[in-house]
Amino acid sequence: MLNTISFLTDYGLVDEFVGVCKGVIRQLSPHTQVIDISHDIAAHDVRAGSLTLVRSAQYLADGVVLAIVDPGVGGNRRAIAVEAGDNAEYIFVGPDNGLLAPAVAILGGAKRAVHLVNEEHHLAAPGNTFAGRDIFAPVAAYLCEGVDLLEFGPAIDPVTLLPGVLPLSRFEDGVVHGEVLWVDRFGNAQLNLGPEDLVDLGHFEEGDVLTFTWNQKSRTVRLCNTYGAIRTGEIGLVVDSYGLLSVCVDRGSASRELGLGTTSPVRIETVKE
Amino acid sequence: MLNTISFLTDYGLVDEFVGVCKGVIRQLSPHTQVIDISHDIAAHDVRAGSLTLVRSAQYLADGVVLAIVDPGVGGNRRAIAVEAGDNAEYIFVGPDNGLLAPAVAILGGAKRAVHLVNEEHHLAAPGNTFAGRDIFAPVAAYLCEGVDLLEFGPAIDPVTLLPGVLPLSRFEDGVVHGEVLWVDRFGNAQLNLGPEDLVDLGHFEEGDVLTFTWNQKSRTVRLCNTYGAIRTGEIGLVVDSYGLLSVCVDRGSASRELGLGTTSPVRIETVKE
Amino acid sequence: MLNTISFLTDYGLVDEFVGVCKGVIRQLSPHTQVIDISHDIAAHDVRAGSLTLVRSAQYLADGVVLAIVDPGVGGNRRAIAVEAGDNAEYIFVGPDNGLLAPAVAILGGAKRAVHLVNEEHHLAAPGNTFAGRDIFAPVAAYLCEGVDLLEFGPAIDPVTLLPGVLPLSRFEDGVVHGEVLWVDRFGNAQLNLGPEDLVDLGHFEEGDVLTFTWNQKSRTVRLCNTYGAIRTGEIGLVVDSYGLLSVCVDRGSASRELGLGTTSPVRIETVKE
Repeated sequence: MLNTISFLTDYGLVDEFVGVCKGVIRQLSPHTQVIDISHDIAAHDVRAGSLTLVRSAQYLADGVVLAIVDPGVGGNRRAIAVEAGDNAEYIFVGPDNGLLAPAVAILGGAKRAVHLVNEEHHLAAPGNTFAGRDIFAPVAAYLCEGVDLLEFGPAIDPVTLLPGVLPLSRFEDGVVHGEVLWVDRFGNAQLNLGPEDLVDLGHFEEGDVLTFTWNQKSRTVRLCNTYGAIRTGEIGLVVDSYGLLSVCVDRGSASRELGLGTTSPVRIETVKE
Repeated sequence: MLNTISFLTDYGLVDEFVGVCKGVIRQLSPHTQVIDISHDIAAHDVRAGSLTLVRSAQYLADGVVLAIVDPGVGGNRRAIAVEAGDNAEYIFVGPDNGLLAPAVAILGGAKRAVHLVNEEHHLAAPGNTFAGRDIFAPVAAYLCEGVDLLEFGPAIDPVTLLPGVLPLSRFEDGVVHGEVLWVDRFGNAQLNLGPEDLVDLGHFEEGDVLTFTWNQKSRTVRLCNTYGAIRTGEIGLVVDSYGLLSVCVDRGSASRELGLGTTSPVRIETVKE
Repeated sequence: MLNTISFLTDYGLVDEFVGVCKGVIRQLSPHTQVIDISHDIAAHDVRAGSLTLVRSAQYLADGVVLAIVDPGVGGNRRAIAVEAGDNAEYIFVGPDNGLLAPAVAILGGAKRAVHLVNEEHHLAAPGNTFAGRDIFAPVAAYLCEGVDLLEFGPAIDPVTLLPGVLPLSRFEDGVVHGEVLWVDRFGNAQLNLGPEDLVDLGHFEEGDVLTFTWNQKSRTVRLCNTYGAIRTGEIGLVVDSYGLLSVCVDRGSASRELGLGTTSPVRIETVKE
């Protein structure tokens, strides 16, 4: 029996949107717990929402993953539910706009998917601008109540689901090219590069330095295992808790100090003598 | 048995106020679930709090509704609990300052009400500035534990409860006059006007246009069923998920683009040739 | 059986950090409820985090208190769990950097403490920058599952735990010297002074006035029992809900009006004729 809904939106916590969805869930499925992943995805930022789901994917409790960043609400995009996980232990519910796809892929790909058109499991509403309350939250709740996936609408071939777009890195002429995926609250700038992407440049260990280039500027960066190992005034390249390289300074914001933002292109190469 | 507390305040989520109230509830009524509606009502903004409760009212789970926007805390305003709902399935707990009244009215009006003066069900405290922690949260918790409403203090005649003030619209000389009730996170400006208020102007369907006037400016607005149906550069008038007309632009903030804020007066009339 | 985790961090609610910790807890200990105290402690501000825990201490539900403000994550600071409370009804889990110490002291001091080095109860991770997810949250969850404290690592002598530093007040030459501990959402400035600290100046009752000095400015302040009792244009000194003196104005921000911030030094003395 499913009894957890992990919940991500761009609704913010100022308006009552999130609370109303939780009220709907509580009324329809009282035994279910809602775990908030984040509700402060930037408004309409499907990319940021999908990356947040990817970072959370392997730590989600078994159950429903209710994810809503839905600029096309009420329009032609499909409302979907998608089974994922090795034992189908997750059911993602949200819009078919690329938001869910990268996390579903990381969790082994879509097993089954349905198009949520059966209005019997929706709430009637005077307008169609709040699918979270009227479609997605009720479907999530009914799933936890044991309603079968295929009751919510016709099956969809998973290959027709809109894929998410994650930026690829590349190695060219002795340079690793990447970009900033995410700037966290502390100002750390996570790259779409892991330590394995540096192998093309050579073999490096903690304490080694590389040349980091962004926005027409170049600086030496040092490979460090912790934020605390970054010396004052230095830039560190830390393998973060997701296994990706993160540009950091100790007890400060690398993003602010260096002017690095989400999608900023970056280059890493060996230090020239 | 009540086992849900829907919780709204202007406490914010930075300080520990909300968490401390939840700790009190958890200790006194461990089986009870708290559903956060919003804690980011602007400080002391009773009107905004009451409108948020109204928008949430029909989606609240059965149980206690704990609502605190209380600039007069510790003063003469009464602390109250009010039964509402067709089957008295809700008990509102909060200050008698107009915050609760509009939602109670929408849910069928007050059945019974009491003045929360029985200190046996309060927490002792060194000061009287935090009624949420010391009065309202414990009362909410004890209600969920099955303590009878009349144990908390003497009954109040519901007609003596302070009413909330919701702005009225009017039709005059061929013009519908209203105001902005609420600007949501996405910048949509909800009016105190529904599609039924346009009937005085004529019969309109999706795609039709009207003249919208605010702040000495006039623009044509188009009736749309979804945000996505609003064309680039246009202003849409969308029936939102609450059944009210909302001034919107597609994937942008109508509030920011037009300079519309809460309580801004607006006018709607037919397009003059 | 422990089944509540009170949770405080400086993670913010924009990134998924808090949600991921909750996912880990839900997966490992499904019967446990998480109560959020605050996640908006300023980044790396151990002092603010420790004061927030102190203010919450006597209202925490029995169980685990998971507190993470951890600028030294991955470095030499110890990860610890500490029993506190008259009946050891609390187990604090977090970094040994002074964050936990003042709340533990208020709750009667540390009973037992352990160093969380047993990796059997941690999550494996590619980097060591997210101890909340990989060490602290799993430990909190396993504690709720009944794993004995001493299973998590070797006992620590509580006297070796890093103490927290709370600012002391002093009375000198007829003047009480203190500082601002905290500015809350409403702009009230809580001092590290209680009404008992005014005894050196004489006997005072509600309505009496004193001279308040900060930042080279002096004003008369009036002792008030509620915010509402502060007259327009006046500054009030209110015994707040924590039993401390708070500098307040009615329906406004004393912090903003007076330029008072956290750690601002202040002086209180009798009014000179």
